[in-house]
Amino acid sequence: MSAEERVLLAHGGGGSLSARLVRDVFLPAFDNPELRRLGDSALIDLGTGRFAFTTDAYVVSPRFFPGGDIGTLAVAGTVNDLAVVGAVPRYLSCSFVLEEGLPLDDLRRIAASMAATAAEAGVVLVTGDTKVVERGGADGLFITTAGLGAMREELPAGWGEPRAGDIVLVNGTLGDHGMAVMSAREGLRFDSPIQSDCAPLNGLITALFDAGVKLRFLRDATRGGLAAVTNELAAGRDWGVALSTKALPVSPAVRSLCEILGIDPLFVANEGKVVVVVAPEDEARALDVMRGHPYGARAAAIGAVEAGLGGLVTLDTELGGRRILDMPLGEQLPRIC
Amino acid sequence: MSAEERVLLAHGGGGSLSARLVRDVFLPAFDNPELRRLGDSALIDLGTGRFAFTTDAYVVSPRFFPGGDIGTLAVAGTVNDLAVVGAVPRYLSCSFVLEEGLPLDDLRRIAASMAATAAEAGVVLVTGDTKVVERGGADGLFITTAGLGAMREELPAGWGEPRAGDIVLVNGTLGDHGMAVMSAREGLRFDSPIQSDCAPLNGLITALFDAGVKLRFLRDATRGGLAAVTNELAAGRDWGVALSTKALPVSPAVRSLCEILGIDPLFVANEGKVVVVVAPEDEARALDVMRGHPYGARAAAIGAVEAGLGGLVTLDTELGGRRILDMPLGEQLPRIC
Repeated sequence: MSAEERVLLAHGGGGSLSARLVRDVFLPAFDNPELRRLGDSALIDLGTGRFAFTTDAYVVSPRFFPGGDIGTLAVAGTVNDLAVVGAVPRYLSCSFVLEEGLPLDDLRRIAASMAATAAEAGVVLVTGDTKVVERGGADGLFITTAGLGAMREELPAGWGEPRAGDIVLVNGTLGDHGMAVMSAREGLRFDSPIQSDCAPLNGLITALFDAGVKLRFLRDATRGGLAAVTNELAAGRDWGVALSTKALPVSPAVRSLCEILGIDPLFVANEGKVVVVVAPEDEARALDVMRGHPYGARAAAIGAVEAGLGGLVTLDTELGGRRILDMPLGEQLPRIC
Repeated sequence: MSAEERVLLAHGGGGSLSARLVRDVFLPAFDNPELRRLGDSALIDLGTGRFAFTTDAYVVSPRFFPGGDIGTLAVAGTVNDLAVVGAVPRYLSCSFVLEEGLPLDDLRRIAASMAATAAEAGVVLVTGDTKVVERGGADGLFITTAGLGAMREELPAGWGEPRAGDIVLVNGTLGDHGMAVMSAREGLRFDSPIQSDCAPLNGLITALFDAGVKLRFLRDATRGGLAAVTNELAAGRDWGVALSTKALPVSPAVRSLCEILGIDPLFVANEGKVVVVVAPEDEARALDVMRGHPYGARAAAIGAVEAGLGGLVTLDTELGGRRILDMPLGEQLPRIC
């Protein structure tokens, strides 16, 4: 197929053109013995034990943005969902809905991004599906990945049970992904463009487990940003989360763009940021581990779990007061992931 | 939420409106302990052994058709993909891409169909995701399911290795699903409307295994119809598949509509039909088992694996000759599943 070729309706028909799309675009990118069988289902050996199973749909627009594309996102996002529950990501499935007319070269680039991200994360893409809809029936392409991970046999004591006094950390600057997509969407030009942070975080998370850090909670801060993650964490608890405004890492470029657009960076989606709650005595060790990893260079302690907050998230203001950081009603930026 | 309510962009934002959509629409339909946790990933216990893992995207238009809807299809299709490789379907994930403005009542109906089909198939929907795109960004809704099944510990001797002399069976009439969708799409009215055959076939397939039938090959005949399945089966082999025109079960209504539309029913998608290849001595027993099941009442032997055909599929003509039944190039009917 030449670079000018485009997706046809018949590429989704389950016939020889479908087979050619798989052979010419997907197999070269994702090649592995299980996928090469091209069975209806992949056959995998999971050993014994408990597994994590997750899925996400990706509809980001535009499909290419500084720092990544919809393919990077579709692999990293699902890997991260597995890693934060304490699983070691192993296998991915991948399903495409393509709009007739999509340039095949775009699909090739995206498949290459998926393959690179999967290789980095150490996961294998073992099964997939492609459907094609008529022009106007979808916007370019949507990708759904599902992921399987083996649960770690040992989780730290207190895992899943944050308590008052615990420290809240994050592995770097907030809002980068959402603002990278927004600037790409609006065609905004900056001297140094904002890069999405989208990345698989299982390596950084494994480093935390391996160091024996007393982890209490992990969650990637995607749609709804830091505000959604911390509110979900605190909801229904006696305690709450008290965040420190000054401690929140936000890059100057993201801060400026958020001000221009009237958006709070705490509500903006990240795709390579994990909120880490640790026992207070392990704050320094956790920060050291994160800062020693390429995806944690700007890790920071941003707040604490505090008794008596009744499930709320608070933010200290620069004037010395406190305000409540609410759960976002909906994403301010549609199709951010 | 009232019946008039529609999907909003904010329902996809990961905030409190997203949570309400899950609580008001999906949880009531799919309720189970694992889903109720609403974690990033479902935690499942798979025991030990080998597993089948599959995914499919569903984009059928219209979303409701006689005999089912996109929800029935999204569960049955993935269940069937697992069952035909010899797995017992266990867990499903489900991911929605919704168009802003979709009536919430449509989503409720579809979720109810998914739940009913999952209950019938004995699978549990344990994790999911929802994204919303702006009006015009997608056509109504697309659903992607991924499925996990435990491989049967024992498969019949010769499983996966059809040989000359084996008999090819199918569990009922061909082309029903595709023609049901076409007639719904075109607003065609018949005295007795054509019903889609979409259904989970794991029960019928389990009955075949349990009866000890010498199964050599199973495959659901979806996109591309019987022609695609038999061609995929024969491709690259010394032998081929010889089908008998007279033996092929096609309902009079499907036959008429296919004639009107100029479509060959052998190329039309089914969603509740499985092609079963058995050892010749087990033909009668396999037919008995299938005919004893609600989804196999019209089961028939339709051909045989024949030496010397060099990977081709042939169809005997009513004039006593033979023609080659080719692999379809692409689906003649886009968005049929």
